[in-house]
Amino acid sequence: MALRTIGPKAAAALDEELMSAGAFSIDQLMELAGLSVSQAMYRLSPPTQSPNVLVACGPGNNGGDGLVAARHLHYFGYKPIMYFPKQGKNEIYGRLRTQLEQLRVPFTDDFKAAIAKSDWVIDAIFGFSFSGEVREPFPAVIKALAESKIPVFAVDAPSSWNIEGGPPSDGPGKDYNPDALISLTAPKPLVKWFKGRHFVGARFLGQEIADKYDIDVPQYKGSDQVVEVPVSSVKL
Amino acid sequence: MALRTIGPKAAAALDEELMSAGAFSIDQLMELAGLSVSQAMYRLSPPTQSPNVLVACGPGNNGGDGLVAARHLHYFGYKPIMYFPKQGKNEIYGRLRTQLEQLRVPFTDDFKAAIAKSDWVIDAIFGFSFSGEVREPFPAVIKALAESKIPVFAVDAPSSWNIEGGPPSDGPGKDYNPDALISLTAPKPLVKWFKGRHFVGARFLGQEIADKYDIDVPQYKGSDQVVEVPVSSVKL
Repeated sequence: MALRTIGPKAAAALDEELMSAGAFSIDQLMELAGLSVSQAMYRLSPPTQSPNVLVACGPGNNGGDGLVAARHLHYFGYKPIMYFPKQGKNEIYGRLRTQLEQLRVPFTDDFKAAIAKSDWVIDAIFGFSFSGEVREPFPAVIKALAESKIPVFAVDAPSSWNIEGGPPSDGPGKDYNPDALISLTAPKPLVKWFKGRHFVGARFLGQEIADKYDIDVPQYKGSDQVVEVPVSSVKL
Repeated sequence: MALRTIGPKAAAALDEELMSAGAFSIDQLMELAGLSVSQAMYRLSPPTQSPNVLVACGPGNNGGDGLVAARHLHYFGYKPIMYFPKQGKNEIYGRLRTQLEQLRVPFTDDFKAAIAKSDWVIDAIFGFSFSGEVREPFPAVIKALAESKIPVFAVDAPSSWNIEGGPPSDGPGKDYNPDALISLTAPKPLVKWFKGRHFVGARFLGQEIADKYDIDVPQYKGSDQVVEVPVSSVKL
């Protein structure tokens, strides 16, 4: 079965429905999404191989998924380092930050120095709601991701890519193609241009709501929260 | 390493600290706890063997863990049936119930009829804050669990057991000894009297807070959210 993709408007409507009629809280959805990110990271490279993971978080929900993932990475034995230069307004970001501070997970303002000391980097800067221009301080960060010598794992979207149109034709993300990507709930159309290892996570959709949004629940194995799905198995 | 136990007062203080200084929400903690319950259920018996799981939920946090677990069991392919006769005051229980209703998970008021049609039953009635008398309508339910011909899996405590003193000397839980038990964060003293398969879940403690409460983070494997720990490996 080839998985169908979901565009940014439908993905936003799905999130909205889960949190209204679905009665989910943002805390629940972000916890399950972030957990699946951390478990995909474990499959990509366990902490014995790559303890130092730099987690770059944007100001919105994608950044929140990164904050949750980093906490679970700490529990798994990694030594995450956080780059989180702009905290969004929703109070959840402050709580997720405090949870990491309680675990003594360090935060840095110097992305370039941190990437030089890391084994992997997680791009949780922008997700499916991104469009338009990359704002400060992220252009230099995305340029560093594009030029990164260490592998990059993107959450839901390679940051700066157009969700439907793929990599930008110019700007800092022009030559950015991460090594791995996790699609949350369902792949976005941009996976057409993506060439690395691809996972699907955020296992919280029932069949009924998946049908309503014309997407497919992937074949998770057992009680797993994440599944690897080659891009060739996505209906583009 | 033998795991130390945590008594009911310290367990309550730990929960309180996680939600104050720790900045966790009840939604986050309950989601991770309930997920670990569902994953332990999967290890006990996958849905291909035992699709029909009756989940008995009490009015408090233990019941909330059961509501979350049931939702994940649905995602894993089980057909859970809910017995949830008394809903606690915290608004989270209403939301967790709605999440199950959205998945068309049935709720029943007839525990005896439901257990007769089930393959396993999860006891999420009372947790570590239980003491004193079993109130209506639960005495008959606990008697049915004690006499159950199908296997029983208890969440954090076999309901009606004294958290420090174990099985009651009389009343409906007198001869109740479930087949499996999951301890959330750390075993409670009652495990001394428990004879079945034992798991630990709710993987959300850092080393620092575990040390503060004189408990041990068990040796989870990889990115797992649950680990089987024989009772012989608990320091009693």
